[in-house]
Amino acid sequence: MAVVSVQQALSGAVAPGSEITVRGWVRTRRDSKAGLSFVNLSDGSCFDPIQVVAPNTLPNYEDEVRHLTSGCAVIATGTLTPSQGQGQAFEVQASRIEVVGWVDDPETYPIQPKPHSLEFLREVAHLRPRTNLFGAITRIRHCLAQAVHRFFHENGFFWINTPIITTSDAEGAGQMFRVSTLDLANLPRDDEGEVDFSRDFFGKEAFLTVSGQLNVEAYCLALSKVYTFGPTFRAENSNTARHLAEFWMIEPEIAFADLNDDANLAEAFLKHLFRTVLDERMDDMKFIVERVEKNAIARLENFLASPFERIDYSEAITLLQKSGKKFEFPVEWGLDLQTEHERWLTEEHVGRPVVVMNYPEQIKAFYMRLNDDGRTVAAMDVLAPGIGEIIGGSQREERLDVLDARMAQFGLDPAQYQWYRDLRRYGTVPHAGFGLGFERLVVYVCGLSNIRDAIPYPRAPGHATF
Amino acid sequence: MAVVSVQQALSGAVAPGSEITVRGWVRTRRDSKAGLSFVNLSDGSCFDPIQVVAPNTLPNYEDEVRHLTSGCAVIATGTLTPSQGQGQAFEVQASRIEVVGWVDDPETYPIQPKPHSLEFLREVAHLRPRTNLFGAITRIRHCLAQAVHRFFHENGFFWINTPIITTSDAEGAGQMFRVSTLDLANLPRDDEGEVDFSRDFFGKEAFLTVSGQLNVEAYCLALSKVYTFGPTFRAENSNTARHLAEFWMIEPEIAFADLNDDANLAEAFLKHLFRTVLDERMDDMKFIVERVEKNAIARLENFLASPFERIDYSEAITLLQKSGKKFEFPVEWGLDLQTEHERWLTEEHVGRPVVVMNYPEQIKAFYMRLNDDGRTVAAMDVLAPGIGEIIGGSQREERLDVLDARMAQFGLDPAQYQWYRDLRRYGTVPHAGFGLGFERLVVYVCGLSNIRDAIPYPRAPGHATF
Repeated sequence: MAVVSVQQALSGAVAPGSEITVRGWVRTRRDSKAGLSFVNLSDGSCFDPIQVVAPNTLPNYEDEVRHLTSGCAVIATGTLTPSQGQGQAFEVQASRIEVVGWVDDPETYPIQPKPHSLEFLREVAHLRPRTNLFGAITRIRHCLAQAVHRFFHENGFFWINTPIITTSDAEGAGQMFRVSTLDLANLPRDDEGEVDFSRDFFGKEAFLTVSGQLNVEAYCLALSKVYTFGPTFRAENSNTARHLAEFWMIEPEIAFADLNDDANLAEAFLKHLFRTVLDERMDDMKFIVERVEKNAIARLENFLASPFERIDYSEAITLLQKSGKKFEFPVEWGLDLQTEHERWLTEEHVGRPVVVMNYPEQIKAFYMRLNDDGRTVAAMDVLAPGIGEIIGGSQREERLDVLDARMAQFGLDPAQYQWYRDLRRYGTVPHAGFGLGFERLVVYVCGLSNIRDAIPYPRAPGHATF
Repeated sequence: MAVVSVQQALSGAVAPGSEITVRGWVRTRRDSKAGLSFVNLSDGSCFDPIQVVAPNTLPNYEDEVRHLTSGCAVIATGTLTPSQGQGQAFEVQASRIEVVGWVDDPETYPIQPKPHSLEFLREVAHLRPRTNLFGAITRIRHCLAQAVHRFFHENGFFWINTPIITTSDAEGAGQMFRVSTLDLANLPRDDEGEVDFSRDFFGKEAFLTVSGQLNVEAYCLALSKVYTFGPTFRAENSNTARHLAEFWMIEPEIAFADLNDDANLAEAFLKHLFRTVLDERMDDMKFIVERVEKNAIARLENFLASPFERIDYSEAITLLQKSGKKFEFPVEWGLDLQTEHERWLTEEHVGRPVVVMNYPEQIKAFYMRLNDDGRTVAAMDVLAPGIGEIIGGSQREERLDVLDARMAQFGLDPAQYQWYRDLRRYGTVPHAGFGLGFERLVVYVCGLSNIRDAIPYPRAPGHATF
């Protein structure tokens, strides 16, 4: 008698008529007048629960089965049978039901078999994976993450774990979290009365990384194709539904490559991810369509069917100015594009994903490659209908003299970046990469309106549960 | 004319006689008297470089090709030809060689074509991936990481990203790194003059996680099979070759499972990883055997061929006491096993991997399941020849009353663990899991003696480069 997952039992992987055991948690129980109970059992292996049919001949039918409530843990053994009713293809005709874990006080159990508000569920983050919605989001998130690793692996990239605790700030900006073991009640001081960080754990000030890009460039210039996929941190006090203090970032970096190669990689990568979700998690996506975003599947299918458009930043500015559209923020060469501009470009003007390329140098980071016009850099943003910017990337400045001039312009100390300068002194090559916030991707695929619903444990002021 | 990786060119994936372009960095250059230069080019895609044969008829032969030194970046185009000499099966007969990046001052370039000391290479962490050894370690590390994700995915597990920044300490022990945005020069104080953490970023004290286990248990009790694979942190001032402040941890958790299931999972998991390395990275493993640990391949093969032994802790104590062996640390029921004891058990006594099970409750964590004897818990350590402990795991205490008693015994505040107690109130089931330090795995596979060589960027007091 085989123990199988609900997914295996429902998918036809087990021959009908087999004796099987399934294990999971009760979603609902319904008693018929004919002396049968129908127990829907979920083990999280797929969206659908399996129906377990419990006859009143079971020895614990009256004492236990008829008292099962949502959330109870059960081991059910019986015959896998083609289902007579609507819905599932198979059900289990139970010969034995063992109740492993009851629910204390079912009336107050937070996860009742009905839709809950997302806000309420953030407060019971440890129980929300038991809901249909967060089961689906968790499996979709997993599917996307696997697709990320698989795409890179199959295309010859190597995964690099860049440091989480760092003493440099890749972007030269953004508030960072300090990491320290100093006793705050009794801070060590130097002769000038300043905090003495030489006595901190790493012997100097340390922070949580905001990006692995600079570090991964060193591996790119040795292994040609590399990527990071790890947590990054921003201590911005923007408690909005679009920002997280802690999020996972994906940053591929390719050698002997320019901005066009970078855009090609971004297109192939995103399409691989979306194709994989539609191939592997249609069960969960159908629920997303039903409950969260009716357009969720259609927009991924459209995305897959559309070659990316490419527009120069300068051209985008002209298009926006000529659009006749009233925007809240000004449109002018030299200013960054706002979400309203990005969404007009991708949704209204082009109607499919757009790569905007070659931004003014003064609004972009020091490491982006200066174009021959001297006033733009080889930077790109990938914009998608329904979300706006989803990827930001650039070709990196590989010429030491130009890099040094850019660093001087940004007021950066070359001594702090000696190792980064070394990469330009020793066998430098054109290289490029991009960054993609993993949770933004989950938000897009699942049609979520709050990014805290894209992470396993919501954490933000007012919502940190643990 | 196709651009191909060195791996593709050498592996026979490209038809001999094809015109190809390869791109990479020079390892060595040798000039023959016959007017040819042999340039070994590596792009990191595999262990071996490819030999590019450059005739003196190339227009830049005298001015450039004959000045190529180790580390120069080159794009070479030519005919893929079966190699006449020893070694590689194929070489490139070049019709064009473009030098993309020179090496400033080749005499002082840190990565010369010769073995360097590992200590020296830790000081040039941004350049060490260009060496044979760190190229190999990086690819092996990547291969292991992919195998981790693939094993779990194919066995129905879902990847869960548990919080990195946390306000609880899973093990109730271990020095943690504080995470804060408070201005240390000007700390906010409350009425009693204490540091006012309510004004810190998360409104309370926050730290870097030491384990995702407690959090992932909540997902286990909804999705049945889950795992974490993410960074964890220990602020221990043990600047040894065996410890890292920042390391990646793998923590699977399975529902409806006991300690035996946990041991079975550990065995299947480790064997999958080692089989994958031998299948996919034999090129790098052969170099490891040659240069680092002559036993590296043989011990993985032995590992794969050996069913794990299982020994009760109490039996292990008796065996150690009767061994007649002089140990530095005492052997006594109730004391933890030291590395010398573990290595005697696995290497001398059994000669293959051993799972030691059921440890005294007073030396193990509060969440481990109390056995019926009342004095041991369902904990296990997996010991392997050549390294000692490689995995630690346990069945978790799923009974609320027993958990509460254990927490009281450990002096833990139940209010702080209310969410964790909830998991025992609502559909609790037996569940188990284990933890595996990813870098320890890399150390074992690559036969390294210093764990800082198992991470992309060594970071430890005295060795932090950035």
